[in-house]
Amino acid sequence: MDKFRHIVIVGGGLIGSSIARAVRSSELAERLSIVETSQSARKSLQDLKIADLVLQAPDESLRDADLIILATPPGQMESAARDFEPYISQGAIVTDVGSVKKDIIQKVEPFIPDGAWFIPGHPIAGTEKSGPEAGFATLFQDRWAILTPAEDMAKAPTARLKAFWEALGSEVAIMSPEHHDLILATTSHVPHLIAYTLVSTAMDMETVTRNEVVKFSAGGFRDFTRIAASDPNMWRDVFLQNRESVLEVVDRFIEDLTALKRAIRWEDGDMILKRFEKGREIRRRIVDAKQDSDQPNFGRDKSDT
Amino acid sequence: MDKFRHIVIVGGGLIGSSIARAVRSSELAERLSIVETSQSARKSLQDLKIADLVLQAPDESLRDADLIILATPPGQMESAARDFEPYISQGAIVTDVGSVKKDIIQKVEPFIPDGAWFIPGHPIAGTEKSGPEAGFATLFQDRWAILTPAEDMAKAPTARLKAFWEALGSEVAIMSPEHHDLILATTSHVPHLIAYTLVSTAMDMETVTRNEVVKFSAGGFRDFTRIAASDPNMWRDVFLQNRESVLEVVDRFIEDLTALKRAIRWEDGDMILKRFEKGREIRRRIVDAKQDSDQPNFGRDKSDT
Repeated sequence: MDKFRHIVIVGGGLIGSSIARAVRSSELAERLSIVETSQSARKSLQDLKIADLVLQAPDESLRDADLIILATPPGQMESAARDFEPYISQGAIVTDVGSVKKDIIQKVEPFIPDGAWFIPGHPIAGTEKSGPEAGFATLFQDRWAILTPAEDMAKAPTARLKAFWEALGSEVAIMSPEHHDLILATTSHVPHLIAYTLVSTAMDMETVTRNEVVKFSAGGFRDFTRIAASDPNMWRDVFLQNRESVLEVVDRFIEDLTALKRAIRWEDGDMILKRFEKGREIRRRIVDAKQDSDQPNFGRDKSDT
Repeated sequence: MDKFRHIVIVGGGLIGSSIARAVRSSELAERLSIVETSQSARKSLQDLKIADLVLQAPDESLRDADLIILATPPGQMESAARDFEPYISQGAIVTDVGSVKKDIIQKVEPFIPDGAWFIPGHPIAGTEKSGPEAGFATLFQDRWAILTPAEDMAKAPTARLKAFWEALGSEVAIMSPEHHDLILATTSHVPHLIAYTLVSTAMDMETVTRNEVVKFSAGGFRDFTRIAASDPNMWRDVFLQNRESVLEVVDRFIEDLTALKRAIRWEDGDMILKRFEKGREIRRRIVDAKQDSDQPNFGRDKSDT
C-alpha cells in the first residue's frame, strides 16, 4: 500500500483509537491526527501517544489530509462531517466506520465537496468495551471490512481504501448500502437488541432476584450480558438509523420464536430438534472461516481459574 | 470431605466425564465406576482411563456404591434410575445433574428404595461441546451447584453431597425444585432457546446468504452460535421437561421485545437508552462474582491471531 500523507481520525474511541494504533504499528501514514470532542478522551489519547496531534475540532492544520476517517458514534457523524467540510481538499478520501450505511450516506454526503471521494465503510470488529483505552492494534486482524461506494464512482479511490483495510489485517467486501444494512441487522443489530432485551427481562423477574441471576449466569446468560454491556448510546443510534431492516429481522425472529413456543407447548419434540440441529452446522462454518475460536466457552474458563 | 467408598456415574458425557476426572484428581473415592450405554463413548472412557471400571449397564459389582450420580441426558434419567434400582443399597446417596428438577424428581423418585437418599442436583457449568473427550476436571471450579432435597429429609446426606461439590470447587445453593426451575428458565433455558431461534432465523433469510452470515458473524452473531452448538437432544428434553417455566419467561421476553420494537418504530430514543443501561450494571456484577472473564470478547480474539 502507498503510505498516506496525513490520516485524520475523527473520534478516538474503541474503533478510532484501534485504527490509530494499527496505522502507527504498520506505518501507514506520514502523519496521524485525531479529532476528539471529549476532553477526558483527548487527555487519554495524548497519554497513549498514538497520534502526532490530538485536536478538539478540525482546523487549517488538517487541510493536507488525504484520508479522513469518521469514527464518531453514529448519531454524531452528521455534525462531524459538517465541521470538517471547510478543510476537505481535492482528491481526499473520506470514509466512516458506522454500523449503518444508508442513513449515514444521507447525512454525510451533503458535506463532501466536489473533487473529494466519500466511500462509506464498516469494519465488522469490536468489543463490548468503549473509549480510547479499550482499543488495540490487532482488532481488525482476520475480520471483514465492508465498503459501499456509489456505483458510478471512479474505481481508484476505492482500491486505495481497500488496500488500507487490508494493511490493517482485514478482508474487504464491496456491496450496496441497502444490502449491508440488511446483513448487519441480521448478524449484529438484532443480536444486540435481543441481548439487551433478555438482560432486561431477567432483571425484571419478581420471583428471581438479581443476585440469583448473577450467581447462576454461567448456564448461558453471561454470554448475553457481554453483548449487552456494549455502549448504550451507540446502539440506540444504530437501531434508530437502521430501523426498517431491524424491524424486518425482529419480526421474523418473533415469528420463529412463537412457532418454537407452540412446539414446546404441544410437546412436538421432532420440530424442536429439527430447528436445533442447524446450530452446530453454522458454528462449524464460523470456526472454519476463522471468525471465532473453537475452544469450549471461547477458552475463557481457563483464564477464570 | 470423607472419601466415598464407591462412586458410580451413570452417563460419561461432558458432565459425567468431568466429574470422573475431578473425583480422580481430588481423590474423592476409593473406587470409581462409569455406566455408559453407548459403545463408542465406552471405548473413549476406557482410553481416557478416568474410571476403575466402565460398564454398559449396572450389575452386582455396583451394589457397594455409596454415591450414584445420574448424568445421562434428561430424557434418559427415568430409565437410568429404573435400571439401577435393584443395585441401590441402604444409605446410598443418589443424585443427578439434570437441568430441570421438578420433572426429574417425578421420574426418578419412584425407583429409590426406602433407606436410600435421593438428593436432586444441578451443577451450573458446561460448554457447548459434548461427549467424554469434551470433559475436564476444572469444569466446576468457581461455579455454583444447586441441590433441591425434600424439605422433610434428614440433613446429613445433603451435607455430605454438599461437601462433595465443594471438593469439586463449586459453591452450593440449596432451594426448592420449583424455584430452581424458574431461575434456570431465566438464566439458561430461555437464553438457549433464543440463541437456537436467532441462528435459525438468520439461516432462513432469503436476502442474506449463509456465507454472508458466516463472514460477518463477528458483529455479535457468533456469540449466539456458540450456545446454539450445544447438544440438540439434551436441549429438546430440557424444554419439554421445564415447559411451564420456559413458556412463562419466553412470554415476558416477547412482551419486552415487542415494547422495544415499538420504541424503535416511534423513534423513542430515551426509552431505548433506559433499557440498554441495565446491561452494563449486571455485567459488572457477573464479572465481580467471578462468573465470567472481564477480557474484551472473553479474551478469545488473541487466541484467534
